[in-house]
Amino acid sequence: MKLIEHIGPDDYPVVLRRPAPPQNDIEEIVRNIILRVEEGGDKALRAISREIEGQVPERFEVTIDELKQAATDVDDHLKSAIRLAAENIRSFHTAQIPRQVSLETMPGVRCSIRYKAIEKVGLYIPGGTAPLLSTVLMTAIPAILAGCREIIACTPPGAPPELLYTLSLFPVRVFSVGGAQAIAAMALGTESIPGVDKVFGPGNQWVTTAKMLMAARGVAIDMPAGPSEVMVIADSTAKPAYAAADLLSQAEHGPDSQVILLSDSMAFIRQTIDELETQLEHLPRKETARKALEHGLAILVGNLDQAMEISNYYGPEHLILSVDNAAIVAEKVTNAGSVFLGNYSPESAGDYASGTNHTLPTGGATRAWSGVTTSAFMKSITFQEITRDGLLLLAPSVLHMARAEQLEAHANAVLQRIQQPLS
Amino acid sequence: MKLIEHIGPDDYPVVLRRPAPPQNDIEEIVRNIILRVEEGGDKALRAISREIEGQVPERFEVTIDELKQAATDVDDHLKSAIRLAAENIRSFHTAQIPRQVSLETMPGVRCSIRYKAIEKVGLYIPGGTAPLLSTVLMTAIPAILAGCREIIACTPPGAPPELLYTLSLFPVRVFSVGGAQAIAAMALGTESIPGVDKVFGPGNQWVTTAKMLMAARGVAIDMPAGPSEVMVIADSTAKPAYAAADLLSQAEHGPDSQVILLSDSMAFIRQTIDELETQLEHLPRKETARKALEHGLAILVGNLDQAMEISNYYGPEHLILSVDNAAIVAEKVTNAGSVFLGNYSPESAGDYASGTNHTLPTGGATRAWSGVTTSAFMKSITFQEITRDGLLLLAPSVLHMARAEQLEAHANAVLQRIQQPLS
Repeated sequence: MKLIEHIGPDDYPVVLRRPAPPQNDIEEIVRNIILRVEEGGDKALRAISREIEGQVPERFEVTIDELKQAATDVDDHLKSAIRLAAENIRSFHTAQIPRQVSLETMPGVRCSIRYKAIEKVGLYIPGGTAPLLSTVLMTAIPAILAGCREIIACTPPGAPPELLYTLSLFPVRVFSVGGAQAIAAMALGTESIPGVDKVFGPGNQWVTTAKMLMAARGVAIDMPAGPSEVMVIADSTAKPAYAAADLLSQAEHGPDSQVILLSDSMAFIRQTIDELETQLEHLPRKETARKALEHGLAILVGNLDQAMEISNYYGPEHLILSVDNAAIVAEKVTNAGSVFLGNYSPESAGDYASGTNHTLPTGGATRAWSGVTTSAFMKSITFQEITRDGLLLLAPSVLHMARAEQLEAHANAVLQRIQQPLS
Repeated sequence: MKLIEHIGPDDYPVVLRRPAPPQNDIEEIVRNIILRVEEGGDKALRAISREIEGQVPERFEVTIDELKQAATDVDDHLKSAIRLAAENIRSFHTAQIPRQVSLETMPGVRCSIRYKAIEKVGLYIPGGTAPLLSTVLMTAIPAILAGCREIIACTPPGAPPELLYTLSLFPVRVFSVGGAQAIAAMALGTESIPGVDKVFGPGNQWVTTAKMLMAARGVAIDMPAGPSEVMVIADSTAKPAYAAADLLSQAEHGPDSQVILLSDSMAFIRQTIDELETQLEHLPRKETARKALEHGLAILVGNLDQAMEISNYYGPEHLILSVDNAAIVAEKVTNAGSVFLGNYSPESAGDYASGTNHTLPTGGATRAWSGVTTSAFMKSITFQEITRDGLLLLAPSVLHMARAEQLEAHANAVLQRIQQPLS
């Protein structure tokens, strides 16, 4: 951890600058993958799988039998664990369903807004070293609550039973395709993989690049994604062992994870750094975590107000408020993905089971983007129903504005109705 | 209008295919404009303005005095018209403000979601032949209701008094910059134009391309935009003169506007086509409208159910339901931007004054995107506050799932709290 003993607003842009993503040729390669999938469909997808993964599934879709079979290989404790997490996620995401609004803006002018499911959605579930079964819960549950009609998931070939079992709990078609080619297949459709209206889910740099290139073509995506982040704000009521554990739980994600500790006590910072060393020794992924900690920051702040100023400037994906009266401090949060209040709210509780969503904006995108919510699987449609009397009230406004914009046919659509009423 | 006398689901992909956007070099040119603004700031912006518009404003920001001065050049009828529209837009967009949700998913596990304003937003207001003062209302009002702290607007040099007056009604800083360079300036920031967190507003192909290229870099935008569209569904209760006027109000926007009429009566279709000719003659923009009508469609459908099937397949930006029991038919809408119910709800009422927003998805984006709402100027943040007892309830779930994902440090963050409670 890099220790910053003094910091003022002028220092924020430099000290809090996130490392630039590695410069490489990924974009050109991904652009080519997308083009190949667009032109060649399944055949191209098979060729790309062979080149990148060295194996080609006989067919892309995982059968229901295969999904069912996976259940027999998963132990009952894990099944219960998934069930409890799913239940909490379901409760919180049900409460988020937006309500329809309807009102008369003027007598005879009724405006409404209704929320409808996006019909076809695609979920990307990363594979690799850590099978993210929790990501299945975080995307499939809100999709189902929103009412999406067709939900598909893509995950790299060789998914472990735990992941297949979790997928089997939901009405989701599963395809063994990973990487940029999976994003291209879901966004564009192939013979065997249906095209979708919106693509969700985290992924590595290949997946993210594919999502961003498809976004430039107007495909809806959940959010831009990047390395994961946690900021811990701790005062004298916090415990160094907890803060260290929270920083490590983020650091183990990858060498590019961002971990930042803010405290108004140098003693607390020093004790936390000591704790980091102690706890690190017991972690299987200690090498990864150590690399992430190398560019981590421990910042001594003047007071809690400055800590919140820094947090809102940075806009962390995860923010842990290990402070007295955390609920009051939390009122000041303007930019963050998910916030953890008090000493018994570790980030890992929200990563899995509290009920909040763990698919969150990173890289400062919290300034404009939300984490995944049930609404992310819906879109709104507005309605207006106007009576003849209502139209008479609106007419002068429409006519003057249409003419100021030199759009006479817009005025005419009102005039026709006024001058030639229905018989 | 092209008349389609028979249509079945197999025909939808071909008959309802939108014209492809013109193939040209715009993307490369816009990419270069973005790069120049990124590297050269104000200086580059001046050079680009000189090249494209042939004029360079002395300073980009329009002064408060200039905005105030504009008011003296605007007639009182238009001022009242704007005031009435603004009031309706304000009412409807206030009703849309999302409410905070908070619940206990388990005893001791409280999850909440709060909606916060995006702090800095940029509004693009097109200039050109028709100054879109209504677009000022449709973007500035929800931005203010959301609570955005810094609102800026860019509009091409030479904005007419009507546009400046409308801008003067809101706490918005105005800059005389147009085109792709305006989008780049707002997204990246220059010495005189502050960078923003999200870019809103319609525009021509240059503006749209710039928005999409910035979206690929993770900049938040309101939606992808394209040529404007209307679909009119009419039964025997409709009036050909109204349907024709509605089609023309869309057709006058541009030669690439999409207009589609669906009816179950060939007599109605023929009468509407006759009416189109009659009304067209009186329109100042008749040449534009005529070009748009050339590729318009009039489709004879078997019944209203098929009309709704076609509408949901196409997902029009504007949908006019000139049918009996329009409110019941409207329940079936799954993909559309804004819907107009009955014979006295012309699209132009919603374009200006009913209260709904006219910044809407086009090109089929209604399948996944919403029109501009107050929420579009906000993002959600989730919060969790867990007690020690709550964490004990969650612990088995977090531990089993973290270990299934091979993330031991995630488990450790819970174990530290259980094994070493606060004194």
